[in-house]
Amino acid sequence: MRKYTPVNFSDVKLEGEFWRERLETVLTHTIPSQYRKLVEFNMLDSLTVQHPVPPLTIPRSKKGSTTQIFWDSDIGKWIEAASYALSHRRDDAIEEQIDDITVQLEKTQAPSGYLNCWYLQREPENEWTNLRDNHELYNAGHMLEGAVAYFQATGRRRLLDVMEKYVDHIGDTFGTGDNQKPGYPGHQEIELALIKLYGVTKDKKHLDLATYFINQRGIQPHYFDIERDARGESPEAFHHATYEYNQSHIPVREQDKVVGHAVRAMYMYAAMADLASELSDDSLKSACETLWRDITETRMYITGGFGPSECNEGFTTNYDLPNDTAYAETCASVAMVFWAQRMLNIDLDGQYADILELALYNNSLAGLSRDGEHYFYDNKLDSDGTHSRWSWHHCPCCTMNASRLIASVAGYFYSTSDESLAIHLYGTSEADVSVGANSVTIKQVSDYPWSGQISVEVLLEKPIKFALKLRIPGWAKGATAQVNGEAIDARANLENGYLTIGRQWASGDIVRLDLPMPAERIYAHPYVKADLGRVALRRGPLVYCLEQHDNGTEPVSSLRLPQSADIRAVARDNLLGGIVTLQAEGVRIESSDWTRDLYRATPPLEIPATLTAVPYYVWCNRGPNPMQVWTRE
Amino acid sequence: MRKYTPVNFSDVKLEGEFWRERLETVLTHTIPSQYRKLVEFNMLDSLTVQHPVPPLTIPRSKKGSTTQIFWDSDIGKWIEAASYALSHRRDDAIEEQIDDITVQLEKTQAPSGYLNCWYLQREPENEWTNLRDNHELYNAGHMLEGAVAYFQATGRRRLLDVMEKYVDHIGDTFGTGDNQKPGYPGHQEIELALIKLYGVTKDKKHLDLATYFINQRGIQPHYFDIERDARGESPEAFHHATYEYNQSHIPVREQDKVVGHAVRAMYMYAAMADLASELSDDSLKSACETLWRDITETRMYITGGFGPSECNEGFTTNYDLPNDTAYAETCASVAMVFWAQRMLNIDLDGQYADILELALYNNSLAGLSRDGEHYFYDNKLDSDGTHSRWSWHHCPCCTMNASRLIASVAGYFYSTSDESLAIHLYGTSEADVSVGANSVTIKQVSDYPWSGQISVEVLLEKPIKFALKLRIPGWAKGATAQVNGEAIDARANLENGYLTIGRQWASGDIVRLDLPMPAERIYAHPYVKADLGRVALRRGPLVYCLEQHDNGTEPVSSLRLPQSADIRAVARDNLLGGIVTLQAEGVRIESSDWTRDLYRATPPLEIPATLTAVPYYVWCNRGPNPMQVWTRE
Repeated sequence: MRKYTPVNFSDVKLEGEFWRERLETVLTHTIPSQYRKLVEFNMLDSLTVQHPVPPLTIPRSKKGSTTQIFWDSDIGKWIEAASYALSHRRDDAIEEQIDDITVQLEKTQAPSGYLNCWYLQREPENEWTNLRDNHELYNAGHMLEGAVAYFQATGRRRLLDVMEKYVDHIGDTFGTGDNQKPGYPGHQEIELALIKLYGVTKDKKHLDLATYFINQRGIQPHYFDIERDARGESPEAFHHATYEYNQSHIPVREQDKVVGHAVRAMYMYAAMADLASELSDDSLKSACETLWRDITETRMYITGGFGPSECNEGFTTNYDLPNDTAYAETCASVAMVFWAQRMLNIDLDGQYADILELALYNNSLAGLSRDGEHYFYDNKLDSDGTHSRWSWHHCPCCTMNASRLIASVAGYFYSTSDESLAIHLYGTSEADVSVGANSVTIKQVSDYPWSGQISVEVLLEKPIKFALKLRIPGWAKGATAQVNGEAIDARANLENGYLTIGRQWASGDIVRLDLPMPAERIYAHPYVKADLGRVALRRGPLVYCLEQHDNGTEPVSSLRLPQSADIRAVARDNLLGGIVTLQAEGVRIESSDWTRDLYRATPPLEIPATLTAVPYYVWCNRGPNPMQVWTRE
Repeated sequence: MRKYTPVNFSDVKLEGEFWRERLETVLTHTIPSQYRKLVEFNMLDSLTVQHPVPPLTIPRSKKGSTTQIFWDSDIGKWIEAASYALSHRRDDAIEEQIDDITVQLEKTQAPSGYLNCWYLQREPENEWTNLRDNHELYNAGHMLEGAVAYFQATGRRRLLDVMEKYVDHIGDTFGTGDNQKPGYPGHQEIELALIKLYGVTKDKKHLDLATYFINQRGIQPHYFDIERDARGESPEAFHHATYEYNQSHIPVREQDKVVGHAVRAMYMYAAMADLASELSDDSLKSACETLWRDITETRMYITGGFGPSECNEGFTTNYDLPNDTAYAETCASVAMVFWAQRMLNIDLDGQYADILELALYNNSLAGLSRDGEHYFYDNKLDSDGTHSRWSWHHCPCCTMNASRLIASVAGYFYSTSDESLAIHLYGTSEADVSVGANSVTIKQVSDYPWSGQISVEVLLEKPIKFALKLRIPGWAKGATAQVNGEAIDARANLENGYLTIGRQWASGDIVRLDLPMPAERIYAHPYVKADLGRVALRRGPLVYCLEQHDNGTEPVSSLRLPQSADIRAVARDNLLGGIVTLQAEGVRIESSDWTRDLYRATPPLEIPATLTAVPYYVWCNRGPNPMQVWTRE
């Protein structure tokens, strides 16, 4: 069913300042520092079965669990990110680190193939007894993704062999056959990984196992009930009360609301989209489309974050999008990028690329600091100055999601079909792609996201015919285009958000695209209570915010941006590595005429004030300070 | 030091509709239903030592404690409220209930006099080992207040004897002498109770014990440290981290910020004000004045509630007054009424009466439903419709604070000195008071708080000279007054918020006071982030709110009240027992032109809408529904 195939990141060289800087930071600082953290926090030691069993490094929480049980996944995710780094440039040190991990895993792996380091070390008698809470399949999934990425980067398959053996054991253990457990993960993730493994092995059993996990989910009698009864636990002991938490409350094709834990949901939807393509399964595609509408029409922040609640790290009710308590986990919006890419490549519908870009440039990118070594787990849209980045976390899931996304971000730029080449993201870069049987080199020049002026040069060995599809973002009004200096009708040739230029291309042909990029005022649906009477600023793909640093000594919350105020884009080369700020002449409420009164009958005075906004993704890189995305209008 | 003495509630007959209805509801419904709850939840059974020890009715929380340990206080507070009811009209059933409790307490009391039912029943070996957390002195205080009230209502002193014996034991146990523990309560309350006991016994040892508890608080070495070390606990195990939580971080005279648990703070400040009077202690008075300024200038909701945070049930930082998560515990504002009354009677300064009235008519009254049997523990100023009243609570402290306050509310109307009679609160009522050696009967006629027109008739046996002091509330601008039809200069005779009419009074003299009562717009200090760009409505002493019930089907949050809109007071005799509503022609944001977009660049449309506001204290008496106090302007 999938019409388009993404061009692998290793075939795309990012040369523009924006992504080059992020990528270099991740390769040079983030990935090595993450390895140091794995050492410092004894996470690598947890791979080996030790006698006597060492005490827990992370204590159990009040709920009786410990995040230490998820460490296999964090190590797997680091291997994935580090392998992407190797695809950019080989590095003996990293390879040695991954090979050492491989040796440890080989030693720890049970003869059956089972390989969860926590259980093997601490409670081998309890293997596969609590899929609902204890993440064995989730851990396996991330380690498998790491193994696939390492194989793709280096051609070495020792880690992949270990994981294939584990996958075989999982395939034997789970299923609807006699002597099999009809189980599936409490935290979805392995489905995606198995589909990636299938991409490498082309062995249909891997695709079948992913399909089984998706199809079995939510079937009655409910596996998590069966498993819980076998453990002798009461239903009330389940902290999250309903299986909406892990999206197993009903079979996946019947689900029409995004519910529960946001990361679980996104990984599952991404796998569903993959399987819809691989299996040409319309019912899965249709379920994905319904869920997509639900999240984008009622449950997403303007920054591409979602899942407002800390309680379930996830979804609540329609239009419940508080700013100061927004959870909007970094992992969840990274996973949204995964899902959106999969939806996009089914039909090449620009609405998916718009959300991919939104989640990527805003909520996801905000998760990593400029120095590459500090992180946001939750991404608030309003802070009193107490919210700040941390250098590590007892649950470091978001750290490696940031690094693996950025290390492979070039993979979101292009897709091809037999007769088309689609460009989704813009920025100076060079890509070698195949369109059908032909090789095409694409050279993009653009200062995107700061500018909407884009030039695309096509380099060919010989002239060939194909359709070049240039994404016209939903935010871009009045886009214009030229081929070799000759204007083409951008509106007439627009198809589902893509400007389609079908022709015989000759080497050196140049397309120029101009996406007008004025600063825009954005308003939220009136049912979003937190945003009533407020306005947000967006320019191109970037959502902006007001940081206290740029806005004087009176609280940013006292600023107001009247509807009549002009908004100017002002490039600031020396600020935060070079950004475009937005400035406007607004007003602020004056506090100096308030003496001892906490309340009074006289309206507050307003005085003129200049508002300066910076892109949301760079906030909190100059120390914690008050910030807001939504400003009173 | 105290210049004025409050007139006891039993000498004041409330005949106006407003308070008569509340009082009747409390006497007829609340107090009997509270007794039924004490039975239903096995609270009365907890007074008796049983073998074997019955299982806990209320399980221990995650922190290891249980609210069941506070039950003596709840029973004591019910006795106090029920005794006030007896002062209004004798009731054999209630007296029998209290006498039965007395018999149980006599049986349970240890030979030493010690009488904490929890410890005697469950862990006698641990008496007085954890004053910081376990409320023994707090429980003793409430039971003592109950005993004093029952003695005052009936003249029976059997319960008072039990409690005096316990107080003697407490006096022997605590102090700075040899063989005494230099301790004091973790939850202040007994100080107030001991001062009330002193009022009955005139035995200075009771005043001395209260003074000791106040003076010893926060002295180094810190008693809670000593006690904790004796228990072998680590400092980190203290959930609230610092002793600010219970206001023992520094000695009370050095405290200049309201911090920690709000109810603890208020009970302590009230006792400090009492002692400032009783002992003519300027340093205590001065500390109270500093703390008063702090709370009223930076940390109080417009409704007279305070303590925004659920975490510590108390104070956070200056101007931190969120509406949707406001804790603003009912108990705390009831206790503010106690503190304010004590401050008021030291100097007769109207600022204290203003806050007394504010806390009474708004946050405190909101705590009890119209039917008298449902309660708010926390009093939000903004609700999405999920916040609602409960019929009982695992920690029922607020229920009996509501009933004991309303059952004795007439005691806040008048004070006298040797040469003056002050009227603080208005409403049709008749009071028999003594001014110096003379008896005076005061007949007030007023539809307050719905109307500001007040008539006060003075009835005397013979003409006498004294100063009649009529409170002019801070909100009343342009008050006018007449004596026997002749205008007097209300402004020239205003002294600290009281209109002073000194003259030879003859029986039948009539004073008319007119307090203009327009609906007013109120604004919060710009540092109160939650209220920026918003306006609240107040009329007379009542703060208003918008309930969804009165404002159509679109969310109340979408309403806006432009500064130009007129606000009309509209009496609605058939609504909620007869109230004055406020109405205005404002606008609301239209949602019908939003189709599938969650965000858009087009500003929302506004359409005309009528806003109808009701007094805050009656909200949520027609089922849970969205509500807001602060509306966008």
